[in-house]
Amino acid sequence: MSTCWTAAPVHSQENLQHIQGIMAKRVAVILSGCGVYDGTEIHEASAVLVHLSRAGAKVQMFAPDAEQMHVVNHCDGKPTTETRNVLQESARIARGEVTDLAKLDVTAFDAAIIPGGFGVAKNLSDWAVKNKDCTVQPHLEKLIKAFHKAGKPLGMLCISPVLAAKVLPGCELTVGQDKECETWPFAGTAGVLKEMGCKHVNKDVGEAHVDVKNKLVTTCAFMCNAPFHKVFDGVGVLVKETLKLA
Amino acid sequence: MSTCWTAAPVHSQENLQHIQGIMAKRVAVILSGCGVYDGTEIHEASAVLVHLSRAGAKVQMFAPDAEQMHVVNHCDGKPTTETRNVLQESARIARGEVTDLAKLDVTAFDAAIIPGGFGVAKNLSDWAVKNKDCTVQPHLEKLIKAFHKAGKPLGMLCISPVLAAKVLPGCELTVGQDKECETWPFAGTAGVLKEMGCKHVNKDVGEAHVDVKNKLVTTCAFMCNAPFHKVFDGVGVLVKETLKLA
Repeated sequence: MSTCWTAAPVHSQENLQHIQGIMAKRVAVILSGCGVYDGTEIHEASAVLVHLSRAGAKVQMFAPDAEQMHVVNHCDGKPTTETRNVLQESARIARGEVTDLAKLDVTAFDAAIIPGGFGVAKNLSDWAVKNKDCTVQPHLEKLIKAFHKAGKPLGMLCISPVLAAKVLPGCELTVGQDKECETWPFAGTAGVLKEMGCKHVNKDVGEAHVDVKNKLVTTCAFMCNAPFHKVFDGVGVLVKETLKLA
Repeated sequence: MSTCWTAAPVHSQENLQHIQGIMAKRVAVILSGCGVYDGTEIHEASAVLVHLSRAGAKVQMFAPDAEQMHVVNHCDGKPTTETRNVLQESARIARGEVTDLAKLDVTAFDAAIIPGGFGVAKNLSDWAVKNKDCTVQPHLEKLIKAFHKAGKPLGMLCISPVLAAKVLPGCELTVGQDKECETWPFAGTAGVLKEMGCKHVNKDVGEAHVDVKNKLVTTCAFMCNAPFHKVFDGVGVLVKETLKLA
């Protein structure tokens, strides 16, 4: 079966595409490198893109044009002596189509989603070093405030809710569960978020928490030691809830 | 809702898990770096892992412990002066859990799947340079022959069917469509595979071709300029058909 999608559509399809184009939600996806230990968690980003694609959203990816905090050998988990650029490494996930975060115009989007990975705690903030005393990358801090002020939803996965905790004090969020065990190796994060004045809501990997007031949607993703498909499905819930608010 | 999956299961669940453990298909996933232009196509690999996870397969990832052919800046598509190791970069996709391809024991697996990306044409073979006159990485060639001889299925995505074309002469396969257009920018590959004596079968992105005789399952994935969710679904068909033959 040959289906050359670029062939001239009949008129009714053209109208349909036009209408879909107008109605499509425009979503900025913010990346922080490529690889769980020093950048964006690859499978969380991929799941976000698959679910947004299925929902017919128009996606543009962004990342800071800056050096990574460091580069980690993902075989042994140890830092190397290399330097890498966050934008260039993010382009691996974006298949080349990634824009400097400095150029993100909030008025051109209906929502933003930030996948997790240590890149969030190393390149988008210094959470990895300073924990609750961290600062968020200054331009990203402005963007989060601007989306929030405009009433446009923010979706944050895995560790990225720490950005919201810092920028939107008192917000409701989840990073999964607050009791550590083999399934929840990073559960201590929930306690820190509570210390920061947030309301942490325990949620399973297949769920997302919606802070309706702040239009903030969060899901734990790989904060849970869960199989790939369960993380994928949880990300699907986050995408759906984020788009509902857009 | 707290669900600590490592809590002691009740007896019936334990039996169920035991039975599932015995019945689970063991699948080797072979990677070639991390990033479409010099390694494994990230979203194809992620889709393979999600679908295998949902099917309850036991997965182990492998990659050669060797230098990449080159490193490509994924923002501008140009080679850089860097060197990177295929195994270490593949570990970004594998979240650290990747084994040297030299250690892959065919008797320990029921099937193997090779996602696409230029890494297949640059690090697993020299197709990118020599096209139909390429050679396949010697150890991988032996492995493909061993899986084939043992009657164990091989699933190959995107450009990776060129490996089968070289190692299993006369096999049936698909890389999508054989007529170039905006949707099928790499359709010329189908013609080369025919010149090599293979039977190329035109298939859409949501389909896989099954060469029953050779137990070879192929799907075009990002050889098609398709939305992420359509590639994801096509990979799902490949995974299902591959597991059926295992």
